[in-house]
Amino acid sequence: MTQITKIGEFGLIERIRKFIKTDASVIKGLGDDCAVLKFDKNRYQLFTCDMIIENTDFTLQDNPYLIGRKAIAVSISDIAACAGLPRYCLVSLGMPGNTSVEFIDKLIKGMLSLARKYNINIVGGDLSRARLLSVDISMLGFVEKKNLVLRSGARIGDIIFVTGELGGSILGKHLKFTPRLKEARFLVRNFKVNSLIDISDGLAPDLGHILEQSSVGAIIYEDLIPLSKPRTSGAGRGKQACTLKDALYMGEDFELLFTLSRNDAKKLLLKRLTNFQPIGEITREIYGLRLVDKQGREKVIKPGGFHHF
Amino acid sequence: MTQITKIGEFGLIERIRKFIKTDASVIKGLGDDCAVLKFDKNRYQLFTCDMIIENTDFTLQDNPYLIGRKAIAVSISDIAACAGLPRYCLVSLGMPGNTSVEFIDKLIKGMLSLARKYNINIVGGDLSRARLLSVDISMLGFVEKKNLVLRSGARIGDIIFVTGELGGSILGKHLKFTPRLKEARFLVRNFKVNSLIDISDGLAPDLGHILEQSSVGAIIYEDLIPLSKPRTSGAGRGKQACTLKDALYMGEDFELLFTLSRNDAKKLLLKRLTNFQPIGEITREIYGLRLVDKQGREKVIKPGGFHHF
Repeated sequence: MTQITKIGEFGLIERIRKFIKTDASVIKGLGDDCAVLKFDKNRYQLFTCDMIIENTDFTLQDNPYLIGRKAIAVSISDIAACAGLPRYCLVSLGMPGNTSVEFIDKLIKGMLSLARKYNINIVGGDLSRARLLSVDISMLGFVEKKNLVLRSGARIGDIIFVTGELGGSILGKHLKFTPRLKEARFLVRNFKVNSLIDISDGLAPDLGHILEQSSVGAIIYEDLIPLSKPRTSGAGRGKQACTLKDALYMGEDFELLFTLSRNDAKKLLLKRLTNFQPIGEITREIYGLRLVDKQGREKVIKPGGFHHF
Repeated sequence: MTQITKIGEFGLIERIRKFIKTDASVIKGLGDDCAVLKFDKNRYQLFTCDMIIENTDFTLQDNPYLIGRKAIAVSISDIAACAGLPRYCLVSLGMPGNTSVEFIDKLIKGMLSLARKYNINIVGGDLSRARLLSVDISMLGFVEKKNLVLRSGARIGDIIFVTGELGGSILGKHLKFTPRLKEARFLVRNFKVNSLIDISDGLAPDLGHILEQSSVGAIIYEDLIPLSKPRTSGAGRGKQACTLKDALYMGEDFELLFTLSRNDAKKLLLKRLTNFQPIGEITREIYGLRLVDKQGREKVIKPGGFHHF
């Protein structure tokens, strides 16, 4: 008997993937932020689900409004990572019998705050009694065929960008982040985005996903990685700044990580927008994932990151 | 502070429903077996999710192959209850770190057994560490506009039918049932089905859903209700037959409950098919839900049934 902790989360996903075959109506199955399905002449349908569980993704000391908000935001971020727009969702709630009605009211209001903002219809769900609170959201969205971006399109020479700041999850950002839907749509409307993912596992592992699926390597520069600054109201470590390690491996930043050709990167930089930061370059696969530190030393780093198992 | 056990599962659903508004692209939101969404000229899209949790819906002593099979079958049954065909699903697994790889392999194989049989693409999912094993399936399907049947269309004078046998959940059927997809499709192709639901909560509560949403009453006959017979290989109570109470309130039969006009009912009965059994008639709302027992005594019964809270 082998415990799943032995083969790890990605080992398990790999194992499951081998069992599964899909037909021609599935443009992309397992392995991206959303499943991509045939829809109509101009659009694909996007289909994704994410479960958040007490003590792993939040605690009961957190504001239930923010827990509900996060449950929805995580799935919106997956739709953004395929450059689409969310439209419908179902909510599966698992909860103990002693949960209070007031708690659930706040949870639902947190969900609705983002559902309304992004035009998402909550169209059903499922309630179960469970020992720990869990919220599983499955979401449907759409993306114009010409705008779909996957993890697999990065090319050697591409410039690597991130939105916002990284590593702030421990400062409480994981409960308050804004999914980067607007930014993703801006990018695909104005540029040819070659690859795109949201940073849920951490910069290093999520860049690792792009590298693996695009069969390329990358070099990133410590100096260029935008670290989250603590706010006076921040929870967690209070006013302590977060570290490079937080940015690389902490996860739950839900910022976008994407690559553009040099030409498009220049065009983006000329717009002098503060919310897109170049952090490195796509290289040949053989170089792996490399980091240049503040002293100019280059080293190979492991994708690593948060794993459930 | 009010605990959710005070207002109950349906009280909670009612409470959530009040918060939620949907736009014109949602044909049916909360309150049926599936959400029904606009799709194309001839078809609607069906969208449903169901979570099964250790110790509520199965135990770790059950065969993992059958647990996986059940997770998928429950959602297929929801699609059947809207007279549609399933096409895609996502799988969210929550599980403890000491789960064995062999266990997960069997779980996945159980899912695939039904996915292959019914042409369903497993297109993604989500893994989380959790204290108890849970499997949440979200499923997409389609139904031709002319074939969609909801809970809300029952008419006074309709004959009430069920498929198969009821009350067998405790004999182990809840892990081995065949979702009634074929039967649902046969019915909508040959008859005008006025209302349709799958029996997941129990005959009485699920008939109660039809009555409530159709604003009608019903009378059913104990003599006509087909009770499950124990099989030699049956788990649970062994060879003891199940009771009327099991059929009315146990739930997890996953048979279909539907109503046809008298004319269509006659046509169906003339086909002399053994898998459709008339059990009663739709009446005016004021009569509520009535049962005629074997002695011919008529009494009003409560919908009742299994509730998580």
